[in-house]
Amino acid sequence: MVSETLYKIGSKRAPVRGLFEYGKRKALEIGAENIFDFGLGNPSVPAPAAVQEAIQAILAEESNTAINGYTPSAGSPEACKAVVDSLNSRFGTSYRPEHVFLTCGAAPALIGCVRAMLADTDSEIIAIAPFFTEYRVYAEMNGGKLVVVPPDIPNFQINFEELEKRIGVHTQGIIINSPNNPSGSVYSRETIQKLADLLTAKSRELGHPIYLISDEPYREIVYGDVEVPWVPDFYQNTLVCYSYSKSLSLPGQRIGWALIPDEIADRARFYGAFLGAARACGQVCAPALYQKVIARCGHLTADMTVYQQNRDLLYNGLTAAGYDCVKPQGAFYLFMAAPNGNAEAFSDIAKESGILIPAGTAYGCPGYLRISYCVPTERIERALPIFEKLIKTL
Amino acid sequence: MVSETLYKIGSKRAPVRGLFEYGKRKALEIGAENIFDFGLGNPSVPAPAAVQEAIQAILAEESNTAINGYTPSAGSPEACKAVVDSLNSRFGTSYRPEHVFLTCGAAPALIGCVRAMLADTDSEIIAIAPFFTEYRVYAEMNGGKLVVVPPDIPNFQINFEELEKRIGVHTQGIIINSPNNPSGSVYSRETIQKLADLLTAKSRELGHPIYLISDEPYREIVYGDVEVPWVPDFYQNTLVCYSYSKSLSLPGQRIGWALIPDEIADRARFYGAFLGAARACGQVCAPALYQKVIARCGHLTADMTVYQQNRDLLYNGLTAAGYDCVKPQGAFYLFMAAPNGNAEAFSDIAKESGILIPAGTAYGCPGYLRISYCVPTERIERALPIFEKLIKTL
Repeated sequence: MVSETLYKIGSKRAPVRGLFEYGKRKALEIGAENIFDFGLGNPSVPAPAAVQEAIQAILAEESNTAINGYTPSAGSPEACKAVVDSLNSRFGTSYRPEHVFLTCGAAPALIGCVRAMLADTDSEIIAIAPFFTEYRVYAEMNGGKLVVVPPDIPNFQINFEELEKRIGVHTQGIIINSPNNPSGSVYSRETIQKLADLLTAKSRELGHPIYLISDEPYREIVYGDVEVPWVPDFYQNTLVCYSYSKSLSLPGQRIGWALIPDEIADRARFYGAFLGAARACGQVCAPALYQKVIARCGHLTADMTVYQQNRDLLYNGLTAAGYDCVKPQGAFYLFMAAPNGNAEAFSDIAKESGILIPAGTAYGCPGYLRISYCVPTERIERALPIFEKLIKTL
Repeated sequence: MVSETLYKIGSKRAPVRGLFEYGKRKALEIGAENIFDFGLGNPSVPAPAAVQEAIQAILAEESNTAINGYTPSAGSPEACKAVVDSLNSRFGTSYRPEHVFLTCGAAPALIGCVRAMLADTDSEIIAIAPFFTEYRVYAEMNGGKLVVVPPDIPNFQINFEELEKRIGVHTQGIIINSPNNPSGSVYSRETIQKLADLLTAKSRELGHPIYLISDEPYREIVYGDVEVPWVPDFYQNTLVCYSYSKSLSLPGQRIGWALIPDEIADRARFYGAFLGAARACGQVCAPALYQKVIARCGHLTADMTVYQQNRDLLYNGLTAAGYDCVKPQGAFYLFMAAPNGNAEAFSDIAKESGILIPAGTAYGCPGYLRISYCVPTERIERALPIFEKLIKTL
């Protein structure tokens, strides 16, 4: 006798994973060089050289037990200080180290925030489509409900009319993700301001605060002069979750954080509940060596210029071929309308030609496909003629 | 509005943490050199030199993206193979890499196993007192119930009469921990065999399997010729959870695993539910660099001879002074009966003299105290005369 709900979650293959497996089989037939995997969001650029240098220096300078011992559960004071120093210098804020809780990647930070705000079994968390598919797992597999706001097509900001309809007495929180996976859009100042105004008014009307979780792993990946507003400047009850997976290209090392500022409503109780959630998820401390790396390198970013190059090549190539694409302002995903309106059908046609792109349905946005362009540029160059052929056959 | 149950868990200070804070205040009064902290279980020996050498070699030999990229969620094939190779060579088993799931320390492995077996809201997990306090959090904060079997005093094996009374239609699993935190006892072959026989009979009687979780972070820390039997040899439905925190002295780096063998009942569904639980807890992959370290060093252990030295010194000193102690067979804890029968009162008296030792009540064993001896030997030498004085004053 096992948990049926967890079995369903664990045995359901993610679309990108299914495509990956298909690609391996198809490669035997048409050759690995003719498989173009645009499914996975695994950063393709190296971590900055400073990360490796920092590890060498830590191993040379610090004692074995200092490197390998447990840190406080929220993280070492030095690493937490590096995080808030960086935030304070960029956003003119005055956070202190104790406002930060380091975690094994952003996932436990997000789960800690979500679980902290699930006051009872009716509690609802709102996500704005398209959204990172794991939000549903984080909420629903930990006793909450996920309520989805349909996408704002074609702007990929927020459909406020639909959002307002979904805020009710059970609404405890809302998660936003900008720069966005999978659409590549960035919420403008106007969007954030309008969201803050709505949440403030609704909190007053309902008589309880609605917390806002700003999930920002792609904050540093934006193109041109696009601005990513600092959300707590607009709305007091904001938690920020972050990961170094993308900015430092360290996805395998599992290091991220949650910012739980003094300004949020009922801060002491929220923080206590977050700590309880961390224990319930087995989050003992973030990996100690990488806490030390963050203390030294947390303000740096990998060289991500190739993402801009890839975006331009892919967006220009696809639109020239006649595809209807959302121009990515950030992250490393391009969201494309299915030429025949049916994303699943187009994904199936494309994979026959070796092009692996998942449908947007799992992200709450049917009719679209996600193209990850954190890939070698050459893969895009060689795939574009196939994209051109594909649209002509429809 | 926050989660009240998680707030209670997160805001309740663990006894060892409270003692640690007390020690910092008391040090201002009597001097830091007169504070003897025996509360925390933080390994005091360095990781083997091979770990640092392995990191240097990995940084020199492997590509940046190979070191830092995501691994499969269950871990890299190489690391999983190293784990099962070590098990197979020591226990004559024939596990394959896909039987192992690497996690960020043992905690997510334990939680994954516990959550996988919570078939409904009445599901119960049994723990044998004294037990690691987090078991209660893992079960109760994830929708299950923890049922505690009272301790087997003074042998600290298993009180089978009390265990049998507690096995019922809702029993899904049982967690054992040998070598044991906090008692330092090791379950004998006879104990494991009797447990296996009881669980086999009860599973048949109830018509559903009772899973056994063997939590083994202290497997390699045993004294003299004490044997730690391989539990799956005795009982088919055994899951094993492990951490390198103690054996390699890497507690801060968060690397461990769950072994989910083919032999367990309903294996495919159990594994699926485990994967679902991993997603629900934000377990994306174990830290990638330390997966590579395990692939190279997983068969080694730190030099732990000082633990034996500390055990002998502490056990002989305390018993000579008139204390009633459980002789530790493994791990790095000594369990001592409170001389006045009241462990809280004795903990309070001791801390006035600078000796910090938590009561066993939180571990399900009132009347006892836990003394962590993963400390500098000199601390024990200097504390023994104070212990001698303390017992005379009672």
